[in-house]
Amino acid sequence: MASSFKRLLIGKPIATEQQHNERLSKVTALAVFSSDALSSVAYATEAILAVLILAGSQALGLSLPIGAGIALLLVVVAFSYRQTIRAYPKGGGGYVVARENIGENAGLVAAAALLIDYVLTVAVSISAGVAAITSLASNWGFPDLKLYAVEIGLFCIILVTLANLRGVKESGAIFALPTYVFVVSILLMIAFAIGKNLFVDPQVVIHPIPPEIPLAGEALGIWLVMRAFAAGCTALTGVEAISDGVPAFRAPESKNAAATLTGMVALLVAMFLGITWLAHVHGAVPNEATHETVVSQLARTIFGIGPVYVMIQSATALILVLAANTAYADFPRLASFLSRDRFLPRQFSSRGDRLVFSNGILALGAFSALLVVIFQANEIAMLPLYAIGVFISFTLSQSGMIRRHLRLKEPGWRRGTLINGLGAILTAVVLVVLSVTKFTHGAWVVMVLIPLLVLLFRSIHGHYRSVADQLSLTTAAKPKPVRRLTAVVLVSGVHKGVLPALELAKSLAPDNVTAVYVNLDQDQTDRLQMRWCDWGCAVPLVVLESPFRSLITPLMNYIDEVGGRYGDDELLVILPEFVPAHWWEHLLHNQTGLILRTALTLRKGKVVISVPYQLER
Amino acid sequence: MASSFKRLLIGKPIATEQQHNERLSKVTALAVFSSDALSSVAYATEAILAVLILAGSQALGLSLPIGAGIALLLVVVAFSYRQTIRAYPKGGGGYVVARENIGENAGLVAAAALLIDYVLTVAVSISAGVAAITSLASNWGFPDLKLYAVEIGLFCIILVTLANLRGVKESGAIFALPTYVFVVSILLMIAFAIGKNLFVDPQVVIHPIPPEIPLAGEALGIWLVMRAFAAGCTALTGVEAISDGVPAFRAPESKNAAATLTGMVALLVAMFLGITWLAHVHGAVPNEATHETVVSQLARTIFGIGPVYVMIQSATALILVLAANTAYADFPRLASFLSRDRFLPRQFSSRGDRLVFSNGILALGAFSALLVVIFQANEIAMLPLYAIGVFISFTLSQSGMIRRHLRLKEPGWRRGTLINGLGAILTAVVLVVLSVTKFTHGAWVVMVLIPLLVLLFRSIHGHYRSVADQLSLTTAAKPKPVRRLTAVVLVSGVHKGVLPALELAKSLAPDNVTAVYVNLDQDQTDRLQMRWCDWGCAVPLVVLESPFRSLITPLMNYIDEVGGRYGDDELLVILPEFVPAHWWEHLLHNQTGLILRTALTLRKGKVVISVPYQLER
Repeated sequence: MASSFKRLLIGKPIATEQQHNERLSKVTALAVFSSDALSSVAYATEAILAVLILAGSQALGLSLPIGAGIALLLVVVAFSYRQTIRAYPKGGGGYVVARENIGENAGLVAAAALLIDYVLTVAVSISAGVAAITSLASNWGFPDLKLYAVEIGLFCIILVTLANLRGVKESGAIFALPTYVFVVSILLMIAFAIGKNLFVDPQVVIHPIPPEIPLAGEALGIWLVMRAFAAGCTALTGVEAISDGVPAFRAPESKNAAATLTGMVALLVAMFLGITWLAHVHGAVPNEATHETVVSQLARTIFGIGPVYVMIQSATALILVLAANTAYADFPRLASFLSRDRFLPRQFSSRGDRLVFSNGILALGAFSALLVVIFQANEIAMLPLYAIGVFISFTLSQSGMIRRHLRLKEPGWRRGTLINGLGAILTAVVLVVLSVTKFTHGAWVVMVLIPLLVLLFRSIHGHYRSVADQLSLTTAAKPKPVRRLTAVVLVSGVHKGVLPALELAKSLAPDNVTAVYVNLDQDQTDRLQMRWCDWGCAVPLVVLESPFRSLITPLMNYIDEVGGRYGDDELLVILPEFVPAHWWEHLLHNQTGLILRTALTLRKGKVVISVPYQLER
Repeated sequence: MASSFKRLLIGKPIATEQQHNERLSKVTALAVFSSDALSSVAYATEAILAVLILAGSQALGLSLPIGAGIALLLVVVAFSYRQTIRAYPKGGGGYVVARENIGENAGLVAAAALLIDYVLTVAVSISAGVAAITSLASNWGFPDLKLYAVEIGLFCIILVTLANLRGVKESGAIFALPTYVFVVSILLMIAFAIGKNLFVDPQVVIHPIPPEIPLAGEALGIWLVMRAFAAGCTALTGVEAISDGVPAFRAPESKNAAATLTGMVALLVAMFLGITWLAHVHGAVPNEATHETVVSQLARTIFGIGPVYVMIQSATALILVLAANTAYADFPRLASFLSRDRFLPRQFSSRGDRLVFSNGILALGAFSALLVVIFQANEIAMLPLYAIGVFISFTLSQSGMIRRHLRLKEPGWRRGTLINGLGAILTAVVLVVLSVTKFTHGAWVVMVLIPLLVLLFRSIHGHYRSVADQLSLTTAAKPKPVRRLTAVVLVSGVHKGVLPALELAKSLAPDNVTAVYVNLDQDQTDRLQMRWCDWGCAVPLVVLESPFRSLITPLMNYIDEVGGRYGDDELLVILPEFVPAHWWEHLLHNQTGLILRTALTLRKGKVVISVPYQLER
């Protein structure tokens, strides 16, 4: 029953040989790998404004230079990653590049940072997607939908998790349509507004939304500008995705991937700068009262509440869900790399029925759902934790590339070192800015979590290595053959379920079988002893006393005693178990068999033989 | 670790031989058995007023005749139960009396009704106790405490559950003090008010609390009077407790128990009538705004907010907790009777470490906690579900007594028949009134639950009987001795953990051993096959293909095939398992061993031999 429910939810199992790697064209690959990066324009501008507004409305103008700085950073990072793509045609994630070129610890730090960031990607993207939907609903006369933001967010996470457990094929159609609708509609909005501004009477068309600006709470200073810049750096999340996925491109993989990266960053820069400029012109600011997103405010002001507005909001929500979906590919893949290298439990590297890394998908779903609940689906509140991980990975990955250039000295290594050097220095500086400005707003959590995760990876690794050492045959002597067997049959009464166990015991250890019974009730024990002569199959019966009514303790003591008595021979503990006809009937019986088996095998290291007796009804 | 935490919470185990039955004097017994009954005066009057108020303030005067009627009913029931006490010196609960004299179904109905009522006793008493505390706190300047009523209630339930798991000795001191403080302070309050009314100027002293009477929502009629009467019948809950506990009295048990019952009912009638009269004189009504209880209103008005008021509220809260505690003796005992007769899972009849029926205690705690959460610790809302169960048990038990008198014709049977007949008729009539008037207010839940529970009891009974039949040796032939053994060793690789299992397999079935391996990864399989020659101990290796990466399915198919090949001989499935040094390290390994063992023993009925290999670190 549980099994057919699973079939219904995630579908029939897929055979291993059906695994295949679809190769993507540049146009499709852009859609597949870019949703995370492109979708960040839905909240990056808003994050900058949310900081600047603290210094009052006159500070909002700074969003333009800050936006330009971030766009510049984007271009540098993109050039840096083109190097990585060329060097790692099989995929160069932060973990792989840092591990190979700097060392194991650098790799683990990058891995920990990325795992945290993937969880945040899901939580932030889903929450921002929900905000797009509730903004739409609010302008359509359903202002109360935002009260259910957490529930809607959790529902989306469950949906995306199930879809990934089924195995979403990374095939174009699903991804291409919403991604390009989003890109086209955002660019259209920007072009439309520019056009109006140039050719139509600007004073009439562009009417600023009445900005309900709070009183300046903080002085405008370099600190606030740095904070606003740090907040906007979320626009860079997801830029690394293409470098992880080079093998999915059509040949020549590296060249196509590099071109796609360039195209993506161009689109990203255009949309981000455009939205930032529009927000400035229209005076859009984050609105705490209505929770309406900045993009929604802009679309509403420019197009009015109509079909275009609805399309923009829907495309925004969809691309944000797709962005979350990207993390569902990245997190389980990285976890499987770590698991393959024995830094995470091996369950993360086994493929489930549908050929996907089910355990990684489930873990990502659970952690991101937890974040959505903790932060009440407020993506702006989560942003301070976000981006730190990505910049740690950027910095480590670029530094790794520098060491690689210096080591291999491949053609063009001087130019490469220069590009990656610039990238490494810039991202390192931004990382420091991010850490310092966001520290008290929640970034400290990430900075505490990363070393803890690295410690966890290391101790898991230590355990696996120790197990492998202990099981290794290099130090093993040929085992001694077993000389003599002793059998102890644990009986719970005289009934049909016990007889096959007694017969088996006699055939396994003809000379040395004992039956053991624990006296929990004197009347029952007397009755048992009377009937034993008839049915005990000539096996001697030992009755153990149990002053505290425990079954386990006296049995364990007796078995220890017998085990000690026969030295290095094998002691077989035989457990007759009757098996009810229906699974729920187990609830009606003490789970003594299970407890005994566990205690004997796992705690005492005894050989346990379960002899089942099947009930028919 | 888990074990020492358990020791801390519930204490060291107690040996069976330490079990002893303390005999109680009448004074102590009154305290032990009466808290449930006596405590109901804390809410019974309020329940009557809460119904009458629906017809406006002029209807409140009817509380006096209704109270008198209930008092009369109490006296009749008490006389009825004196008969039961005499007839069942070993304890005559509703289940036992109805089962013995009417039949199994009647017994089961009484049992189901009582189990439900015990759960309600805990939920209602704890909630009423919390109401007493929050009323006190409210008058002391902490009106917000009532916002935490559910949390306080759950905390109290956990506390009482733990105390009972430790095994509260039913010894006097704990029970006697609060019970008598409660009785004395309530009687004192009544006497004080009567005195003032008679000797001091009544106009000055008795000043009615301004009754914020709502508009008459319902017409006053026979229906409302019946509903008010039914609501007040909660005063009768707990009256049956003494008849269950006759063996706990000092000799002559029956005589002492009967005298105690009379004393208890006298006190109950006096307090109930007194409080009802006081509420009438003072115009106390249930206050939905402040949630102040009627008793608190009275005590505050009569004594002012001072030490006497605090004492009355504290004693009320304490006796209500003790009332809940009574159910913790009754429920597990009744569950153990049902379990002994195989109507409930046998786990309910085994005594835990501390000689108490731990499973019954835990079940009662869980169910009553659920009720407190569902009803948000509002005892007045739970009352419609309450009392139905008790009256079903009353009616069945009295009817059983009638049949007993008629059957045995013991001395005085005519008088007995008359008394029990009157009791049976009256309680049956009240039961009808209760069912009809409370039906739509929640009583239907109880009336649906009771037949469902009886069905559950019956199907559990059916299962146990069927198991006993199937295991019975009366139809058993002497078992065939085992002729030839076949062994299959399931291997996960070539390592030290496998070698002892192979040796054991060779010694158990020298002629017929196979090792089986499932190919999940072709490289690993190739490596295994190369090393098998060196280490395989001359056992032939079979490699199974697994197109869907499942370990279980191909193994099960293979074992079925081998099992079928050798007909009626014994097939031993040998499972090498390496055992990590620390329990948490299990999380780092697939639980394949556990899953395989379960599937093989429980689903396939195969003999499974676990051969553990203990890791040292």
